[in-house]
This record gives sequence, C-alpha cells and structure tokens, in this order.
Amino acid sequence: MQYSSKVLESAIREIAKLPGIGQRTALRLALHMLRQDPEEMHQLSESLRHLVDDVVYCKKCHNISDTEICNICADTKRQENLICVVEDIRDVMAIEQTSQYRGLYHVLGGLISPMEGIGPAELNITSLVERIDNENIEEVIFALSSNMEGDTTTFYIYKRLSEKEISVSTIARGLAVGDALEYADEITLGRSLQHRVPYEQSLRSK
Amino acid sequence: MQYSSKVLESAIREIAKLPGIGQRTALRLALHMLRQDPEEMHQLSESLRHLVDDVVYCKKCHNISDTEICNICADTKRQENLICVVEDIRDVMAIEQTSQYRGLYHVLGGLISPMEGIGPAELNITSLVERIDNENIEEVIFALSSNMEGDTTTFYIYKRLSEKEISVSTIARGLAVGDALEYADEITLGRSLQHRVPYEQSLRSK
Repeated sequence: MQYSSKVLESAIREIAKLPGIGQRTALRLALHMLRQDPEEMHQLSESLRHLVDDVVYCKKCHNISDTEICNICADTKRQENLICVVEDIRDVMAIEQTSQYRGLYHVLGGLISPMEGIGPAELNITSLVERIDNENIEEVIFALSSNMEGDTTTFYIYKRLSEKEISVSTIARGLAVGDALEYADEITLGRSLQHRVPYEQSLRSK
Repeated sequence: MQYSSKVLESAIREIAKLPGIGQRTALRLALHMLRQDPEEMHQLSESLRHLVDDVVYCKKCHNISDTEICNICADTKRQENLICVVEDIRDVMAIEQTSQYRGLYHVLGGLISPMEGIGPAELNITSLVERIDNENIEEVIFALSSNMEGDTTTFYIYKRLSEKEISVSTIARGLAVGDALEYADEITLGRSLQHRVPYEQSLRSK
C-alpha cells in the first residue's frame, strides 16, 4: 500500500508489528487515532512508554508490579505458608479473579519446552527453591497447563522439591461447572471420576 | 479485572479505548509489549505521538499529508483538469492502489447524513466548488458509496456544480470482475446490464 504521508506510514508499520494486527487493521486504528482528541492519543502514547519503562517484576514472586515487592507478597493478610506456582502473570490474574485463593504465588515465566529451547535455567525455578528454603512454606500448589510442557515442568520442580518437608498438590482437573457429561472428552471425564470428592465436601464448596 | 500494577492497568485502559479492542486483547497486547525490546516499544509510542502531532491535511484536496500540499497535488505529471471526489483518505489509497487513475482528488471527509447530524457545511464541499472556480477543472468524477448517504451527497454536490461548465460522472457499478451471475444481487446485475459497454471497448480495458 502507498501512503501519502510518511508519518502515517511509519505509525502503521509500528502498529502492524503487534500480534494479531495486520496492515488493514493498523490503518483503521491509525485513522481512528487521527479522528480523536490529540490529548487522549498523547495519553495512549505516554501510557505505552510508561508500561515499557516503569513496570517491574516482584523480586519475590516475579509477578508484574510497580514496586520491588508486589502488592500480593506485601499483603500481610494473605496466607504466607502457601505458594501457587503458575506459568505467567495472566494466570495470577485469573486465580485472583476467583477470590478463592488467599496464599502467595510464584510466576515461572514460561514452561520447560525442549522444542522451543526453554530449559529449567530460563525459568524462575531456583528462586522458588530458595523461597521454600528461606520462607516458612508448608504447601506448594501447581497450577500449570495440563499438556506436555506443563506436566514436564511440574514433574521437574516436584523432583527438585522432593527432599523438602512440604506438601505438594496440583489443581483439580475435571468437568467444568455446568458441563454436560455427554460432550466431555474422555480424558477429562476420566479425571473427574478418578478425583471424585465426597458428596458432603462438594456441598461445602458451593 | 484486578491488576497488580497501576502502570499496566492504565496502559490496558488506554489500549482498550481503541475500536475493536476489548479488555482481554488489550491485556494480551500489553503483555506482548512487555516481552519486546524496550527500544522497539519506544518507537511505537513515538510514532503514535508523531502521527497525532505531525500529520496534516493537504490544503487543496484534504488528503492526509506531511506537507501543506500533498504529494499527489504537487505531482506535475498528474492530470490537473480531473478531480475524483471521495469520502475519505482510505478511498484515495484504494484508487491509487489500482494505478488506473492519474487525476487529482478531493476528500470530502464524510457524507451528508441527517441521521448523524452531518450536513453539507461539515464537509469539504465549499473548497471543492472553489477549486472548480479557480483551477482549470474539466471533469469531476464521483466515487462515493452507493447508499442513501452517498447518493444524497453526490446529488447535492451535482446540483451545486450544475452551472459550471464541467462534465460530471460517477464510477461504474456492476458485477465485480470474476463474479458469477447467479450469485449477484438483482440491483447490481440490473445496473451492469443498464451500463453495458460496447464489446470492443471492454477488450481495450483489459
């Protein structure tokens, strides 16, 4: 596409580098921006610069944060003996959204994947082991994806923690609340049966 | 959604103001940006600021431009007696893409739409009339959408130009090249029949 403005062209080129945004969408977004109040667009531009320059990661749990220690780790009302291990910060948000978990987190920053050349050294695993050594942790909950990479990562960390005196668990897998049995895949349904819970316990969790 | 970083939250809020981008996509884009080279993201932020601050519109044809007169109006090789009237700058790009048109443009900046409160005064119509009075224009081609607003705008401008000694035309409507007759809507097919071209002329335009 030929553009009659170099400024427009360079903006479109930069916007189109974002994932899921092609040339046409970039053009549409750029033209939209031109129709907006310049002040609002300066805010957008500024907030992107801030994002890249000012966001830091929590020194303890590697969650995204504005301060050295994130507000979850700094919250004294949370259960300090419980760590939930997740792949990335989106998982922290998803779990926080449930309001069902009051412990701490540890963000690995990825999963072990020989195919993509990601080994244990690339992930925040050593800092997890150090936390378990130095803090008063009683339980580690794995909340990683149930695929090859997730299972490998869980198993690898589980092995490294095997000599520590802590209990290790993984989140329950099974049919989603509201799912019909007939449409469930057999692995999930099998897992749901295997990990059945006593009826009285299931009543309490409602 | 709760975010553990105010900086992230404000970036997501700004990104999600863009059309077609919701909270989830904004989060995905923000996290993508955090994984990129900060230098690249500064470029994105800068190019958006430039876009809003430095883009101007051509004083003659109202096309987007980096200079007072756009590179199409400034191009002495183009046919200066021919103006194509379009709704917005995207239409200029679409026509330029064909490489079939060597005249000038006039960008109205919208269409007359009583429903949306857009009257002739909101559009660049007076400047079009002035161009026809002052420049040596011989033909005006209307390339507006064939809907209520487009037809109204074409008719309104046509009336205002009725006393000028110029020829006025509209772009041809008909079946797209490659379209099958059986799937065409009746209005388009009817128009294709009405505006049929002599066979020899159709050979020349291939």
